[in-house]
Amino acid sequence: MLRVKATLEYDGTNFAGFQKQTGTGLRTVQGVLEEALARLTGEGIVTVGAGRTDRGVHALAQVVHFETSSHIPVEHLPAALNSLLPSDLAVLDAAVADASFHARYSALGKKYSYLLLNSRRPTAIWRNRCYQYPYPLDLAAIRLAAEFFHGEHDFRGFSATGSSVKSTVRRVFSFDIVKQGDWICFRVAADGFLYKMVRLMVGTLLEVGRGKILPQLVGEILDTGERGKGGPALPPQGLYLERVYYPGEGEKGETGSFLDRAWPIP
Amino acid sequence: MLRVKATLEYDGTNFAGFQKQTGTGLRTVQGVLEEALARLTGEGIVTVGAGRTDRGVHALAQVVHFETSSHIPVEHLPAALNSLLPSDLAVLDAAVADASFHARYSALGKKYSYLLLNSRRPTAIWRNRCYQYPYPLDLAAIRLAAEFFHGEHDFRGFSATGSSVKSTVRRVFSFDIVKQGDWICFRVAADGFLYKMVRLMVGTLLEVGRGKILPQLVGEILDTGERGKGGPALPPQGLYLERVYYPGEGEKGETGSFLDRAWPIP
Repeated sequence: MLRVKATLEYDGTNFAGFQKQTGTGLRTVQGVLEEALARLTGEGIVTVGAGRTDRGVHALAQVVHFETSSHIPVEHLPAALNSLLPSDLAVLDAAVADASFHARYSALGKKYSYLLLNSRRPTAIWRNRCYQYPYPLDLAAIRLAAEFFHGEHDFRGFSATGSSVKSTVRRVFSFDIVKQGDWICFRVAADGFLYKMVRLMVGTLLEVGRGKILPQLVGEILDTGERGKGGPALPPQGLYLERVYYPGEGEKGETGSFLDRAWPIP
Repeated sequence: MLRVKATLEYDGTNFAGFQKQTGTGLRTVQGVLEEALARLTGEGIVTVGAGRTDRGVHALAQVVHFETSSHIPVEHLPAALNSLLPSDLAVLDAAVADASFHARYSALGKKYSYLLLNSRRPTAIWRNRCYQYPYPLDLAAIRLAAEFFHGEHDFRGFSATGSSVKSTVRRVFSFDIVKQGDWICFRVAADGFLYKMVRLMVGTLLEVGRGKILPQLVGEILDTGERGKGGPALPPQGLYLERVYYPGEGEKGETGSFLDRAWPIP
């Protein structure tokens, strides 16, 4: 048996999220991937993903692992699988992993990006790839508020109910805000994310940017852990799982980031 | 009767091109727009577009004109129409135009962009928004070859049969090539375009970039007007109608260009 680590890109628009939902008839990333693996290898392969993305959320580099007895050379797996997969799901890379590698438990952290089109002009081309926000934003206030997210905090106040995690403490490694024309991209790397955490964080920053709440409220929500004090969770189409970090990778994989690949900059 | 000039953005993926094809049941931009206009005004409004984009080609700022007796204030037209239009077609702007304004005949020129993802890695998120080209490209040779396009030439050799234009002479105002990471964007502004001209121009540049033909061949094709000597017409999903130029606009509208709006740059 070989353990394989594979990297996936998907357009989340027409998926009911990452996680397989047996018996529901729902089209999920994991379900579609396992079907292709079964057709390719004849095996009943079960995949494990680094994280469960919700319906409509995209991934530039989701990571999965699985075990196989197939004799197909692992370097040929991406092309073989892509020939069987629908066009909104692509295998970018596959490599043999240690038997101890686990896509979820081995991960040191993840990076998500939330892409905002801050304009009153509607968009047809980008409708499923960003969240459109028509109100003027005070970016200085947003940046000030985002400072509170850095470091280790109890992010309970920035999580939705519906998951049963043991601890709601997470460490945010970086929180960057990049503005270019009408676009604003919020990028957050952390050792882990609670349910809807990014969408609630950015939703709260937008309320700050509109002047509805003060930047300091972000600090208060982190201190008290109270839910419902910040902004609403933003819709999924602006969210991208951009990177999963594993030990020993160094900066490898950073070239697959937004800057070089995801967004063309002509 | 008021004459209205309207600007449209559309995702060409699910349209059989711009032009209405009565009786075919095909979903076209013009057909869908005229349906919404009819529902909104009760009139049988006929629209005239600046240019006919093919199936799968996108527009960031297609321009149309039409006449209406409706009493709806023109500044309310975009929101009113967008509430009736499907999400892959958006009216960005509407304004009263002179009775002499004609979306096609008044145009001084147009700008198109062709977006290439120059990578062997497949892409799921961008599959309908760019053309993926897996081979390494010599960008210096491409830039040299593109120099031949500048100015007034007979572009017959860079046109597909199927249109019956009087003259195949066109003036190229600018031909820019912007590279960012794996992305290459070819942007060409001209006083007019022949059928499949951009896709044939860029297709030929790619053959130059792969070393299959010499940059000088571009000059020869322009001199001789021979068809079929250059590269093939590239597929439609990389092509964007970015701008239509009209007299008296100055630099107005340039903020709606790729740089500021079309491509986020986080």
